[in-house]
Amino acid sequence: MVNLKEDERLDYLLAENLRIIQSPSVFAFSLDAVLLARFVYVPIQKGNLIDLCSGNGVIPLFLSARTKGQITGVEIQERLYDMAIRSIEYNNLHNRIKMIHGDIKEMPKQLGFGKYDVVTCNPPYFPTLSKEEINPNEHLAIARHEILCTLEDAIRAASQLVRQGGKVAFVHRPGRLIDIITLMRQYRLEPKRIQFVYPKLGKEANTILIEAIKDGNPDLKILPPLIVYNEDDEYTPEIREILYGES
Amino acid sequence: MVNLKEDERLDYLLAENLRIIQSPSVFAFSLDAVLLARFVYVPIQKGNLIDLCSGNGVIPLFLSARTKGQITGVEIQERLYDMAIRSIEYNNLHNRIKMIHGDIKEMPKQLGFGKYDVVTCNPPYFPTLSKEEINPNEHLAIARHEILCTLEDAIRAASQLVRQGGKVAFVHRPGRLIDIITLMRQYRLEPKRIQFVYPKLGKEANTILIEAIKDGNPDLKILPPLIVYNEDDEYTPEIREILYGES
Repeated sequence: MVNLKEDERLDYLLAENLRIIQSPSVFAFSLDAVLLARFVYVPIQKGNLIDLCSGNGVIPLFLSARTKGQITGVEIQERLYDMAIRSIEYNNLHNRIKMIHGDIKEMPKQLGFGKYDVVTCNPPYFPTLSKEEINPNEHLAIARHEILCTLEDAIRAASQLVRQGGKVAFVHRPGRLIDIITLMRQYRLEPKRIQFVYPKLGKEANTILIEAIKDGNPDLKILPPLIVYNEDDEYTPEIREILYGES
Repeated sequence: MVNLKEDERLDYLLAENLRIIQSPSVFAFSLDAVLLARFVYVPIQKGNLIDLCSGNGVIPLFLSARTKGQITGVEIQERLYDMAIRSIEYNNLHNRIKMIHGDIKEMPKQLGFGKYDVVTCNPPYFPTLSKEEINPNEHLAIARHEILCTLEDAIRAASQLVRQGGKVAFVHRPGRLIDIITLMRQYRLEPKRIQFVYPKLGKEANTILIEAIKDGNPDLKILPPLIVYNEDDEYTPEIREILYGES
């Protein structure tokens, strides 16, 4: 039924009735991707959504459970693109999710300016360091470091793809919050909703979720804190609900 | 011993061994001021600290319990300045806290550029609206609305007063976070620590604490969430500790 390569596994996509191909040596999705797919505003009945830096397609797959709209995913690494394609086929979602193997910087010219209602992106988090410091696994290095795509590339592409009044949502590390906000304003994306994810009460936030509106009015909300683990190092009810649909 | 005017009261300054003159019709300090005074970095043994938009002097009084340095407070409203002066006298702190009755915009010229290690500010939160919408009580209107001092005025003055490598800390509403960050960067203040204050778990943040370093390197930390009330609407242990020194 599904063609698995090398060390690939067919994992359950948690609360959703979906399966996804993953591989520890190539790409496995993180909690961050799940949180972004659940954080972003989506139109329920129709609309055009696009996910940049899609990896193995985790965000498009998750979004397909929240919207009946058309979803496009863009991934530059052929090996990851190929995993996404096979997962979409396996879940019989090829009529609702389209994967593009390409560079997000080329997408506005290729797909059109201002054509999307929603853009999501879980970009590489880490600046490009010297060759020695970068993960020798090329797949993981490209997914994690700003080698082929900087934060500015991602925000510029998102701004060009989204229509006026449309939504752009990113997940990133708190250390880049100031850069994200500055770049978003530079590219006419006004941040409207931010949620901080704290690993535990009493701990610093380690993840930020941020949604902006193209040419929106300034009016930012800081959503309730999302706490991942309770005092006993178990997932909090809120995270269990997101991951497993339990409450 | 203390000369109280009109409806003024001599209130305890909570956990500190201090008293402060307040008045419901003129000015009473908020939890926000207390949180800022405890959030900001302070040098313990010596240093020059300045608090802008000081009101009745609540932040200078609080800071005097955390540092042996020299503290200056600036307040434009003579009535509030006068309350601060009398509270400082009453607490016998006139050799450590100096109040200036004046406009913060004039202070860099008057006091010198780059002379302070720490600048704090709890500015007016609300934009200036039409006359009808503003509080008819002039004291409260000036303290709460950007009538005599805009956010940009406060950030510009803070940046001019602080030395390179010195700290600037503000408290404000989340709706202005993007403006604060954008203005801080414009005036060479790099945000380094932000703490969000949530009234309760599950509620949106209603207050932000932000500290920047003049000409600092980008590297932002989001501190643990500060939750004010528990499920039973009582102060959380963390807030009780801040307010009453209990834990």
